[in-house]
Amino acid sequence: MVQQNSGATETPIDAQQTDGTPNHLAPDLSTGAAWMNGRIMPIADASVPLNDWGLIHSDITYDVVPVLDGAFFRLPLYLDRFLKSMQALRLDPDMDRPAIEAALHGLVAASGLRKAYVAMVTTRGVNMVAGSRDPRDCKNRFFAWCVPYIHVIRPEIAQTGAHAHIARTVARIPSESVDPRVKNYHWGDFTRGLFEAKDAGAETAILLDAAGNVTEGPGFNVFSVKNGRLITPDSGVLEGISRRTVLDIAREHGIAAEIRPLPLSEFMQSDEIFVTTSGGGVAPISRVDNRVFSNGVPGEITNAIHRAYFEWATRPENRTEIAYPA
Amino acid sequence: MVQQNSGATETPIDAQQTDGTPNHLAPDLSTGAAWMNGRIMPIADASVPLNDWGLIHSDITYDVVPVLDGAFFRLPLYLDRFLKSMQALRLDPDMDRPAIEAALHGLVAASGLRKAYVAMVTTRGVNMVAGSRDPRDCKNRFFAWCVPYIHVIRPEIAQTGAHAHIARTVARIPSESVDPRVKNYHWGDFTRGLFEAKDAGAETAILLDAAGNVTEGPGFNVFSVKNGRLITPDSGVLEGISRRTVLDIAREHGIAAEIRPLPLSEFMQSDEIFVTTSGGGVAPISRVDNRVFSNGVPGEITNAIHRAYFEWATRPENRTEIAYPA
Ligand SMILES: Cc1ncc(COP(=O)(O)O)c(C=O)c1O
Ligand SMILES: Cc1ncc(COP(=O)(O)O)c(C=O)c1O
Repeated sequence: MVQQNSGATETPIDAQQTDGTPNHLAPDLSTGAAWMNGRIMPIADASVPLNDWGLIHSDITYDVVPVLDGAFFRLPLYLDRFLKSMQALRLDPDMDRPAIEAALHGLVAASGLRKAYVAMVTTRGVNMVAGSRDPRDCKNRFFAWCVPYIHVIRPEIAQTGAHAHIARTVARIPSESVDPRVKNYHWGDFTRGLFEAKDAGAETAILLDAAGNVTEGPGFNVFSVKNGRLITPDSGVLEGISRRTVLDIAREHGIAAEIRPLPLSEFMQSDEIFVTTSGGGVAPISRVDNRVFSNGVPGEITNAIHRAYFEWATRPENRTEIAYPA
Repeated sequence: MVQQNSGATETPIDAQQTDGTPNHLAPDLSTGAAWMNGRIMPIADASVPLNDWGLIHSDITYDVVPVLDGAFFRLPLYLDRFLKSMQALRLDPDMDRPAIEAALHGLVAASGLRKAYVAMVTTRGVNMVAGSRDPRDCKNRFFAWCVPYIHVIRPEIAQTGAHAHIARTVARIPSESVDPRVKNYHWGDFTRGLFEAKDAGAETAILLDAAGNVTEGPGFNVFSVKNGRLITPDSGVLEGISRRTVLDIAREHGIAAEIRPLPLSEFMQSDEIFVTTSGGGVAPISRVDNRVFSNGVPGEITNAIHRAYFEWATRPENRTEIAYPA
């Protein structure tokens, strides 16, 4: 998929006619679609003004819900988090929860995607007063987009377990500066860590806080397995929905879990390591820096939790079905 | 100026014809213009794809140079910093220094603006490989835009000195996480501070680091004047070009300056306070929280440096003249 955008797009053809039925003259949306101002369009035709504060101040929040086999997985939890994030940042795009949910449904239905990565986004928007530096003068903007399901850890890599790198030259942005529980795009620390990881031949990066505790990585939470118990960091991280699903699964399976600080030295003594993300569910890590874990393959508990994650996604109570056009 | 953008823009009319002469059918660019892919257009028609990493990871750098009386002020210093920022983030939009400089000249000349705020921006761009999470797979993107000169502190406020608020609920993002010398849009801390300031009835916010030292604010460096000497923080801040100009002016005027940590308690004992920014030059602060400085008006040294800043902008060696169309 090559997504080009000149910065000056053509007027898009609507994917839906005004009566809501699909427009059969519409371009293919199956490689990615966007919802903006009530219209659905190919993702390559969707853009934001270059003076939107979302771009020029990263004054933006978002959430990403997976679609698996034609249904949103645990959608209410994602909507809860998204609404909380908007409230924390005092963002109000004049879209209530039902309107947001309807936009997501319409978008994914129009795309035809049955396995998708669906982003909902609110930006501060463009300042409506010439020269104003006051965020209260901006018109907040909501939009959404979806693409075929993304694996934060590539599946061919996850098969044998990924190689993760502990970032050395950068620490996770602390909660005192940017609240990691409010889903945000302040990824300078992650991106620097990713470059470090790629330089080291690793797939991804794990960041530490200033005290040397494990936090999270670019798009995932981290779990250590030790003596049959799970350990995941308590603070300085996003409260991932996949993390929560894993904790729910652990409870169901009678696996003990500890939510507490996880020093790097302890982490490096793990029996197994995995990460959790809406972009792939549960992905095994079999190497961190030069140390190999679980014999260089995904661990047994990791595999069991991975299977349980996708089994949970088939349960009716976790599914919000999408009404695709016939 | 109301800037609207539907997220699905019309094809813009070029401001220049292919031979470089102005297109007289072109819309008015005097409220804001953008340069993208070699084309100049009204700023409201310019946009970035919603999956550009500049937006979805704040993976972006920028710089802002002022135009005063028809010339860039100290342009080489801004270009130096912008190129260094791109290098630090491993951004390469395939535009060398002369190409960037030519784009800025063409943009401002076409806008006709003789007093302007001119932004140059490079984003990581859109990932060209479906589903890739690797920044190396992105096509980096350069663009520029200009609007009428912006005052970070509104002139009517600056006249008597602004009221600044010390942010209490948020600390400046530390250098260990995001290097503040690489000009970036990780403004979550500033925006939170700004809301706090507005709630307190103040014009703007000043952020502290974790140790309680003064850092900077949303768009400016901070100076304290005490017993005729200037003090400005040494680290954890952008090395502002206006800050440098003030330090150059101080040297010329025989005013001593100290570049070192500035604890809040010492700062609150200042004789005068001012901030420096390319959006306004030198702006006085006459109140911080509930404490009044320099009798509630701009201080004498502040006024002298403010005058010197604009005098410096008239010196030929500091000016890069813009060739406006006749
Ligand atoms: C920083 C960060 N941590 C953790 C996660 C995982 O959260 P979730 O399981 O809700 O997708 C994400 C997802 O994007 C993330 O960006
Ligand atoms: C965080 C921050 N500090 C300081 C400044 C002042 O820098 P300069 O004088 O180069 O405009 C800016 C300008 O935008 C800024 O964003």
